[in-house]
Amino acid sequence: MDFEQLAKNAKTASLNMTDLSADIKNHALLVIADELEKHAEQIFEANKIDLEQSKDNVSASVFNRLKLDRNKMRDMIQGIRDVVKLPEPIGKTLLARQLDDGLNLYKISCPIGVIGIIFEARPDVIAQISSLAIKSSNAVILKGGKESVNTNKTILSIINNALEKVKEFPKNAVQQVFTHEDVAQMLECDKYIDLIIPRGGNKLVKYIKENTKIPVLGHADGICHIYLDKNSDFEKAKNIIIDSKTQYPSACNAVETLLIHKDFPQTNKLLKALENAEITLVSNPETWAFEHGDKTLAYKIVENAEEAITHINTYSSGHTDCIITEDNDIAEQFMKQVDSAGVYHNVSTRFADGFRYGFGAEVGISTNKTHARGPVGLEGLTIYKYKLTGNGHIVKDYVEGKKHFNHKDL
Amino acid sequence: MDFEQLAKNAKTASLNMTDLSADIKNHALLVIADELEKHAEQIFEANKIDLEQSKDNVSASVFNRLKLDRNKMRDMIQGIRDVVKLPEPIGKTLLARQLDDGLNLYKISCPIGVIGIIFEARPDVIAQISSLAIKSSNAVILKGGKESVNTNKTILSIINNALEKVKEFPKNAVQQVFTHEDVAQMLECDKYIDLIIPRGGNKLVKYIKENTKIPVLGHADGICHIYLDKNSDFEKAKNIIIDSKTQYPSACNAVETLLIHKDFPQTNKLLKALENAEITLVSNPETWAFEHGDKTLAYKIVENAEEAITHINTYSSGHTDCIITEDNDIAEQFMKQVDSAGVYHNVSTRFADGFRYGFGAEVGISTNKTHARGPVGLEGLTIYKYKLTGNGHIVKDYVEGKKHFNHKDL
Repeated sequence: MDFEQLAKNAKTASLNMTDLSADIKNHALLVIADELEKHAEQIFEANKIDLEQSKDNVSASVFNRLKLDRNKMRDMIQGIRDVVKLPEPIGKTLLARQLDDGLNLYKISCPIGVIGIIFEARPDVIAQISSLAIKSSNAVILKGGKESVNTNKTILSIINNALEKVKEFPKNAVQQVFTHEDVAQMLECDKYIDLIIPRGGNKLVKYIKENTKIPVLGHADGICHIYLDKNSDFEKAKNIIIDSKTQYPSACNAVETLLIHKDFPQTNKLLKALENAEITLVSNPETWAFEHGDKTLAYKIVENAEEAITHINTYSSGHTDCIITEDNDIAEQFMKQVDSAGVYHNVSTRFADGFRYGFGAEVGISTNKTHARGPVGLEGLTIYKYKLTGNGHIVKDYVEGKKHFNHKDL
Repeated sequence: MDFEQLAKNAKTASLNMTDLSADIKNHALLVIADELEKHAEQIFEANKIDLEQSKDNVSASVFNRLKLDRNKMRDMIQGIRDVVKLPEPIGKTLLARQLDDGLNLYKISCPIGVIGIIFEARPDVIAQISSLAIKSSNAVILKGGKESVNTNKTILSIINNALEKVKEFPKNAVQQVFTHEDVAQMLECDKYIDLIIPRGGNKLVKYIKENTKIPVLGHADGICHIYLDKNSDFEKAKNIIIDSKTQYPSACNAVETLLIHKDFPQTNKLLKALENAEITLVSNPETWAFEHGDKTLAYKIVENAEEAITHINTYSSGHTDCIITEDNDIAEQFMKQVDSAGVYHNVSTRFADGFRYGFGAEVGISTNKTHARGPVGLEGLTIYKYKLTGNGHIVKDYVEGKKHFNHKDL
């Protein structure tokens, strides 16, 4: 099947999904979880083939992400069951307003439509993102990394066999494509695809953002900062910086640059403590907009909070930036003026995460300035429509002054 | 000044605007309104030059939109004073949640940043959009039509002279560019510009949507439908269709296609009544995706509601589509399954408008599936950031199970 036809089928599926009740969607998710559990061995077999084929071609970290072990399988299946427990995101009344007698306006949450997901090695993404799409009545077209093609195919066929058992569930809600040519067509296909979500490294995300007019939800770089003010607590500062850099150095919310107020009294002691925590310190303008992804930390001495804020608004990727200070006024100024999705005070940057925020699911972390910003939960897969109901109301009567709007919230 | 520098200045202005209090912004708006009132004659003089220069080159409707008379001037100035009365859109707490003892998350509304506005002949757009931008702490770069260049320059210089009188107000919040080359650079400038809002005909909007990766808020086509179900009231139907088509035929929310159930008993009488209302009826598949912009109405006889819904989901521009029926179940099905920003029951499509919805201001009408859909008020010029405040909280403690999230809404 050509991509255009496949995308058109996804569109049709998405239109048929707008009608699905919460019960049907949750039932479908539970059937998927059961079927994945039942066919776990089949998935492990497919994964073995992928691992075998790529063991000499990929880095250790890619290999690890590619590998599905029993723990990951358990988490993946539990993740689907957790999505069942989340509140229904579709059909919520966001506004109810009487415009005039008998003329009522309702703003109702609804699915976005068709979502293209492009992801790299981790095959567990399929189950996660498919379950979020099903919960929010969106159709998805998935494109996984070529290293995990056998695992992906197996997981998807189990998901689709499960969906076939739920007779009310429309066909083509979850589809998969495989080639670079498919990706190129997906990025062009704004006729049928409403949103692209890339899940992978910043090279992938950058490529996608630069090659499509379809809205992209995600982030390329994660260049996070900590500004250490002069009035700050040494132990707090040390612990926060070490956690932000070393707890998971390759995460997008790990800190990359430390800005230190010139009058912070214990700078040397602090830098020593960071080195003792196996952090490699560098101080070099070429690293101001660089995501190290390892235990390297750039640092710079600044004159004051204003310089720190300007530095951050110049070099930050707008993901998460933190101030460490005991001065609440300076903290407030920092959090107002720094233009990032997350602005933190005296906490590790590593908290930037949908689960830690209590969203129950994470679609991704967005550095966009429209639609959804920061860690994005299920809400990011929804939009709204306006329903207006009346009894023959026409605009002429209002323009001519025969009738008047009263705009009362219901 | 080159465009890049101008855009960079806008970005700096936008960062300095995040701090502005509601009082300062409202004061600035009132000063602008006063100054425009005081210098009205100067604006009329400039407008006269524009009218003189374009009287032989533009259509009557462009000429009318270009012309600023005393009524339009009064409405334009009143519009600014009305924006002052709107609730402050920035700094609203959208979510407040304790993640753990002393670790508090706040989702706070904030400006988007820099907004590029590209508009055609109507010079009053400058005052309207500048006041909405100021109210929402966004910087704007305006590009008006060349026909109104003298009027635009005069209005903008009055606005900027007014802003200079408000000493807390940052420079470069409202800037203007003039050339096609500037537009080309604006559409490329995703480094500094966060959102583009086109205000004009569908050619302009289409051109912009096809030539930028920056999010565009707006709609190109307004292809709206009315489906007349078999069980519907003749008088209601007649009045709604005539209002939807003739009350303002060139509006984007005017109806273009009427779908009539084959068993509606008074089709001939209805078509006659529409012709008596000076509506030109056509029935031709070539017009299914066509915006007439005049009193021409395409019509088609359909088998049932399903065919109507499929027709609409195929040909509608996703703006506003209406069902006329006395059968509430069919109406409910229609409003669920039609994938448009506005889904209406027994009312004129002409109600699709921010003022009629009670938003107090209208940024535009969006057919996007992300960020903002339908008539967009001030809210569409905002996004949010997450503030997280703690007292030395680090992620390691939670990963190692020493501490646990409690996720209590505050």
